[in-house]
Amino acid sequence: MKVIVDLCIIPLNVEVSLSKYIAACQVILKDAGLKTHLHAYGTNIEGEWDAVMAAIKACHEKVHSMGAPRIATTIKLGTRVDREQSMEDKVRSVELKLAH
Amino acid sequence: MKVIVDLCIIPLNVEVSLSKYIAACQVILKDAGLKTHLHAYGTNIEGEWDAVMAAIKACHEKVHSMGAPRIATTIKLGTRVDREQSMEDKVRSVELKLAH
Amino acid sequence: MKVIVDLCIIPLNVEVSLSKYIAACQVILKDAGLKTHLHAYGTNIEGEWDAVMAAIKACHEKVHSMGAPRIATTIKLGTRVDREQSMEDKVRSVELKLAH
Amino acid sequence: MKVIVDLCIIPLNVEVSLSKYIAACQVILKDAGLKTHLHAYGTNIEGEWDAVMAAIKACHEKVHSMGAPRIATTIKLGTRVDREQSMEDKVRSVELKLAH
Repeated sequence: MKVIVDLCIIPLNVEVSLSKYIAACQVILKDAGLKTHLHAYGTNIEGEWDAVMAAIKACHEKVHSMGAPRIATTIKLGTRVDREQSMEDKVRSVELKLAH
Repeated sequence: MKVIVDLCIIPLNVEVSLSKYIAACQVILKDAGLKTHLHAYGTNIEGEWDAVMAAIKACHEKVHSMGAPRIATTIKLGTRVDREQSMEDKVRSVELKLAH
Repeated sequence: MKVIVDLCIIPLNVEVSLSKYIAACQVILKDAGLKTHLHAYGTNIEGEWDAVMAAIKACHEKVHSMGAPRIATTIKLGTRVDREQSMEDKVRSVELKLAH
Repeated sequence: MKVIVDLCIIPLNVEVSLSKYIAACQVILKDAGLKTHLHAYGTNIEGEWDAVMAAIKACHEKVHSMGAPRIATTIKLGTRVDREQSMEDKVRSVELKLAH
């Protein structure tokens, strides 16, 4: 089952800048061979369900190991069985409507 | 790694009432032996990471098999390594503050 | 326009326990006359769109004034125009399906 | 109070493709003069709290008027009082960490 995810990992009780934790997660996602797009409030991820979920778990383990006692994550997660659809397809589909 | 999750599964392109899909997911979560609390905008779940994630995947598979071509899920997911904390602890902690 | 919301306000860069901030927000929501249900990963709120949104803004202002330099909030928000539905209706509708 | 938001509006009980609804919301956000970035699972928005919230309400009203009886929206919403930060700052801050 393929999934498109939007992942936002927020370490608590650490310094006010979170970018080093986010960067560590980007490395994990890339190393897992997942397609990603970083934006201003999370990261889009595309891949097989199990591979994506294993990478998200690895991100939690990594961020805890970097010193965060607590993590609050928000995940949006879409699956569909009617047809294949990539992250680019989703954006392009909206942009096409806007161009008309 | 223990996790407290808030799960909100939304089947798309189905009838306007979603309760039969939510009910089917409740059965899956209970059968998985997970502690749950159903509220008006999702379900709190407490358990081990892998068990919770396997149950969420089973929910997606079930809801697709019931006829939903597309599912949009929102998950909030908290882990902490400083101490144990249950769902009841979290609510009680706020209620204690309110009682003073 | 009536709305049913699930609100989860997370102050960053503060102590690891967040319950005093959550409690302060409960007070604001109650004082605003909104119907609420506190659960282990947020608070359900029912009310008119503008009243609910004004209360959420007041929560952010309050939590900042209590010392949080940064806040990360997650809101789920449902509106429907086909019929009236309360928070209790939503839960009861699922429970009825489970009872059969 | 400035806010950075991630908005994901999901009309229910409509056709399986949601892009025409998303496109209509993009128009509303642009017309409101808000800075936006469309990604595969939502839209980043930057602006003043009241202006952003008014635009989100206008999106709900528009999507209902296009025929959706029910809408399920997910909003992530960040405020900070320690310093100014734009959507580009947030992405750049992570990319700088990755470049080292």
